[in-house]
Amino acid sequence: MNEKVLNIHNEHTGVLSMKNNIEVRDGDELSLAYTPGVAYLSELIKAQPDLAKQYTMSGKTIAVITDGTAVLGLGNVGPQAGLPIVEGKALLYKCLSGVDAFPLCLKQDSVDSLVTTIQNFSLSFAGIHLEDIKAPECFEIKEKLEESLSVPVYHDDQEGTAMIVLAGLINAAKVAGKQLTNLSVVINGVGASGVATARLLVAAGITKLTLVDVEGVLTKKNCSNRYQKQLLENIEQAMSVHTLEEALVGKDVFIGLSDADLVTEKMVGSMAHNPVIFALANPIPEIYPSVARKAGARLIGTGSSKFPNQVNNVLVFPGLFKGLLASGISRVSLDLQLVVAQAIADLVRKPTEDKFLPNVFEVGLADKIAEVVVAYSKKR
Amino acid sequence: MNEKVLNIHNEHTGVLSMKNNIEVRDGDELSLAYTPGVAYLSELIKAQPDLAKQYTMSGKTIAVITDGTAVLGLGNVGPQAGLPIVEGKALLYKCLSGVDAFPLCLKQDSVDSLVTTIQNFSLSFAGIHLEDIKAPECFEIKEKLEESLSVPVYHDDQEGTAMIVLAGLINAAKVAGKQLTNLSVVINGVGASGVATARLLVAAGITKLTLVDVEGVLTKKNCSNRYQKQLLENIEQAMSVHTLEEALVGKDVFIGLSDADLVTEKMVGSMAHNPVIFALANPIPEIYPSVARKAGARLIGTGSSKFPNQVNNVLVFPGLFKGLLASGISRVSLDLQLVVAQAIADLVRKPTEDKFLPNVFEVGLADKIAEVVVAYSKKR
Repeated sequence: MNEKVLNIHNEHTGVLSMKNNIEVRDGDELSLAYTPGVAYLSELIKAQPDLAKQYTMSGKTIAVITDGTAVLGLGNVGPQAGLPIVEGKALLYKCLSGVDAFPLCLKQDSVDSLVTTIQNFSLSFAGIHLEDIKAPECFEIKEKLEESLSVPVYHDDQEGTAMIVLAGLINAAKVAGKQLTNLSVVINGVGASGVATARLLVAAGITKLTLVDVEGVLTKKNCSNRYQKQLLENIEQAMSVHTLEEALVGKDVFIGLSDADLVTEKMVGSMAHNPVIFALANPIPEIYPSVARKAGARLIGTGSSKFPNQVNNVLVFPGLFKGLLASGISRVSLDLQLVVAQAIADLVRKPTEDKFLPNVFEVGLADKIAEVVVAYSKKR
Repeated sequence: MNEKVLNIHNEHTGVLSMKNNIEVRDGDELSLAYTPGVAYLSELIKAQPDLAKQYTMSGKTIAVITDGTAVLGLGNVGPQAGLPIVEGKALLYKCLSGVDAFPLCLKQDSVDSLVTTIQNFSLSFAGIHLEDIKAPECFEIKEKLEESLSVPVYHDDQEGTAMIVLAGLINAAKVAGKQLTNLSVVINGVGASGVATARLLVAAGITKLTLVDVEGVLTKKNCSNRYQKQLLENIEQAMSVHTLEEALVGKDVFIGLSDADLVTEKMVGSMAHNPVIFALANPIPEIYPSVARKAGARLIGTGSSKFPNQVNNVLVFPGLFKGLLASGISRVSLDLQLVVAQAIADLVRKPTEDKFLPNVFEVGLADKIAEVVVAYSKKR
């Protein structure tokens, strides 16, 4: 496997290349594609800068950006080691939804420096996809970019995770015969994904939420940033529990956005009847499906394609950005996230324990999501 | 023509796209191309960051960057209107030498901000091609980037112009029966191209140089920056002349890197016998070939493909960067520029008035230049 990975990425120096849409074989073609043709185009755009989006690849190409500070399962790997991750995502955009995406790694630096750098080259792109940037910096970076840019800014670890978790939860609740908004949910890991997921669940009407981080159950006293604090204001959280183990007792849902092997069979056994287990740590989940099953859980999702019900952002982002580009929507609002999550859930006609989420290779998945985004933009 | 230009650039939203080198059609391919395959690659690169250049497109892709401050013939057009220019250049890289190049426009900002921005994303690229950035800022930007980056930094308006002018001059001198180092040369326009061209001509042994800028013949008193001043220390310039008209009297060569219609038939008539006229302003040259011909000039080059002897950077950069990437050379030194200029000149077996430079579509042009660069790197 590892040998094969190296060969694949080595053969063409990466999994992506540039492609010319036209040929330049003689003076006539040169004069159209380059000088003096571009001078005419340049003058046109000078007078009306927005036309750049129509006549250059800046109108269709998104930047997939990381600083390598928070790669899932690996932590801070440095900017260069973040490159295969963002190049892989850019490849998935092209293969799964035809979206042109270019991978960029940025030097690790202050929030302000990262924001300024992205602002400075942002006119070259139709959207910004942030990837694997550590919390809480990622929240501030995203806020500042959204305030200053007119193109969509999307952080896959945040909104991508939130949407796919909610989509899974909508259908898992259906299979369990429980009402979505009545679910009591424990989220373990309150970083980029945890905060964004909690926000979206609250927006979906789920208020019985317990947030657990490395220090135990999150309270206003042990919050490590203002984003976590804001969250606590909107949820009803049992204040008498302190550990993950205590928090899980009697709860309907466990959402793990944390680390390998944190949940035991016994802990799952202490949860409510027919619990939902989303053990999304990668590559090793918080609890293996086989172990959770021993404790009676039947509704289980992981981040991996090796098990049924892959709760993975790859189901979301290719179609989402295809829709954003087609519709011209410039914000991935909570409202839009709710719509997309519902649409993904709806793609599974009859959810079951074995399949409550679509498969990433399901024909039409990305197109369906894109359609929903475009329809959403027209309704507003 | 203009309608055709718009259609070509509109059809695919720009002349370039992203291309996937592999397919992602099922779980197996997904696990190789993305997770968990990339996690292995990411760990490998974390331990040895240089490996990113081998396994990701950062090892083969150059950034073609402008801020739109100095587009030839148009001036300051703004960043977005610079995009068709850099996208056109990136297209020419792909079509003429197979080099992957991505077009970026940057917000117009201070030298330090531009430098910091490029430094911050530089790990994503194998080289930096600067384009249409105004002087004297471009000199400082290039210096600072060369000091801080390990990949080649090339400013097409500077080194590209310098190399092709020298290549043309080598052969034009041959046809004129004059010795290169004895030529008396007037350069009109002492911006990015003028400074770099003068530097290279001096390095080639041409010291009888007169530099003329908007204020007239350049002297230590009317220099507008330290780069012009440095140049004056290495050349023998007649101090008794003040205007371009005066400067041209009796000279062998006119190199126009300036504006349309600045040179008259009479001025060409005042030059030495068999003068060389490079009227490189685009789209309208300093003097039309037909007019220069009336005054007796026979060795004439322009920047346009509409006339014989196109003295245009497009002859240089595709092959140059192909060679830089293949050889791992990290500086486009004066020494390398001399070698490349000579190689381009040598490509024309028997230079004549009608053809003293190769044609851009000559088979093997880029490969030949790349070979010379690689050979140069081995000799050092």
